[in-house]
Amino acid sequence: MITPLIGLDWGSTRLRAYRFDEAGGVAQTRALPWGSRHLPEGGFAEAFAQAVEGWPCAPVLACGMVGSRGGWREAPYLDTPCRLDALAGALTSLANPGGRTVHIVPGLRDPAGPDVMRGEETQVAGLLAQAPALAEDARLLMPGTHSKWVRVRDGAVAGFTTVMTGELFAVLRAHSILGAGVAEGLADDEAFARGVATARDAGAAGGLSRLFSARALMLEGALAPAAVADFLSGLLIGDELRMALAADWASPDAPVHLVGEDALCARYRQAAEAFGLSFLATPGAIGAQGLWYVAAAAGLLEGLSHA
Amino acid sequence: MITPLIGLDWGSTRLRAYRFDEAGGVAQTRALPWGSRHLPEGGFAEAFAQAVEGWPCAPVLACGMVGSRGGWREAPYLDTPCRLDALAGALTSLANPGGRTVHIVPGLRDPAGPDVMRGEETQVAGLLAQAPALAEDARLLMPGTHSKWVRVRDGAVAGFTTVMTGELFAVLRAHSILGAGVAEGLADDEAFARGVATARDAGAAGGLSRLFSARALMLEGALAPAAVADFLSGLLIGDELRMALAADWASPDAPVHLVGEDALCARYRQAAEAFGLSFLATPGAIGAQGLWYVAAAAGLLEGLSHA
Repeated sequence: MITPLIGLDWGSTRLRAYRFDEAGGVAQTRALPWGSRHLPEGGFAEAFAQAVEGWPCAPVLACGMVGSRGGWREAPYLDTPCRLDALAGALTSLANPGGRTVHIVPGLRDPAGPDVMRGEETQVAGLLAQAPALAEDARLLMPGTHSKWVRVRDGAVAGFTTVMTGELFAVLRAHSILGAGVAEGLADDEAFARGVATARDAGAAGGLSRLFSARALMLEGALAPAAVADFLSGLLIGDELRMALAADWASPDAPVHLVGEDALCARYRQAAEAFGLSFLATPGAIGAQGLWYVAAAAGLLEGLSHA
Repeated sequence: MITPLIGLDWGSTRLRAYRFDEAGGVAQTRALPWGSRHLPEGGFAEAFAQAVEGWPCAPVLACGMVGSRGGWREAPYLDTPCRLDALAGALTSLANPGGRTVHIVPGLRDPAGPDVMRGEETQVAGLLAQAPALAEDARLLMPGTHSKWVRVRDGAVAGFTTVMTGELFAVLRAHSILGAGVAEGLADDEAFARGVATARDAGAAGGLSRLFSARALMLEGALAPAAVADFLSGLLIGDELRMALAADWASPDAPVHLVGEDALCARYRQAAEAFGLSFLATPGAIGAQGLWYVAAAAGLLEGLSHA
């Protein structure tokens, strides 16, 4: 088997390594628990050695927090608007143990926020490589700990914003009064929908103005302790949609293309309906596809025919 | 010295005991670290015994979380709109060790939220007893861990809402990425003002949509690590003002009367200027005055002339 490229999707809490085949498909994937904030003894070099052990000496392309200031090697941001083919021209390279060379994809910076991303730019590149029709004008949402709302225009990331919905949910549940006395429960779609509706009906004041109602409703028995977390999740995701509409990241007149993990995307789609928004699913595996696309554009695959 | 009343302001984290003189002044104050969520061995009864030790056997009136479901004795809420003289008619009484009787002021519930308060209703009663001109129509703000925005009309609490600004600040700073790598610093009014302006300039999307900018600004060196906390504080307080304006708790056409600790009130006044709002200081010690007012209205002071 010819291995023209090894790809690394290397975030703050985990590392995924992809061994590509000639056609740009993923022949082998390894998932390691080594993120830029959680490394083995020996640091990045040791984590890298584990990730690629036994794989051929192909070019390596990495994206994500591995390129941050606290990462393996800082890969400076490119400012938006930024054409996606510009990523390939701005790789930071690192000659490295094991005789391999690792190239790191730059992150993006939106000066309007300011706001920054690392890793998601490669996913956007992968999505547009698979669905070129979106390159002209599209709205994307990558929900998660730090949701990214991205506007694509003319083959470029025109701008983006981060909403800290997932992290806000986690810290409020674990460390605030809203988590006190609540119980673990099965996913409660009804409580989630009630949270979304509460955010929507709060109007201009927004869902965060109703945060304390999660507590008051539980105290008076109108919300079961096992339903509080889902209510809170709905309230925060609903408020994220309100903010996205207010700042024109989302619009009732255009679909939003969702990129992310299935269960979370399903929640966002449920919330979108309550706001009259249309959310569309996107193909999976775009992270790996993005690495392949950037590697090709950077000429890293040129040796392929000789391998 | 005659002691017509002992007052207890008993919250979730602390207990203040007031020994009143004949004129309704506070002759002696004791501060104890016993809140409803933090009690000595022996629980409420032991904390109470310490608070009143050596004081005459006068009627006791308590307000705050001591009357919550997890408190000493549950004192049911009164729904808004609620006249302040109705508090005195709805005391919950508790015949108690030491031969004393403890009366507990009810909390208030706003069914529109729903929202609840315990303790603040007594402060409102104290404020209106000292400044009767406010009883007809006033807007109040009691900033803190859980800020309370209160609308007074016709001698009643017409409604109120809780904004969790203080708690949100604390959990984000201690447990989120926004607190990572930040340094302790002196109070930085400029960073605070910058956070307030960021919230204000975010328009309808609101300050929470700019939360991640605190991180991005620090990463690019545009916000010193020691200034992040004040920036975040300004952003959250600014967003609280935006919400209050959107939901008509605050208005550019009417002053807001501020009730609270001096340093925090100064911060809110600074933020109010950026939003074109007028915030006025209120007299201190209204908590004790509120207990005196409610006790008088309830007839607890009737034995006074015989003491």
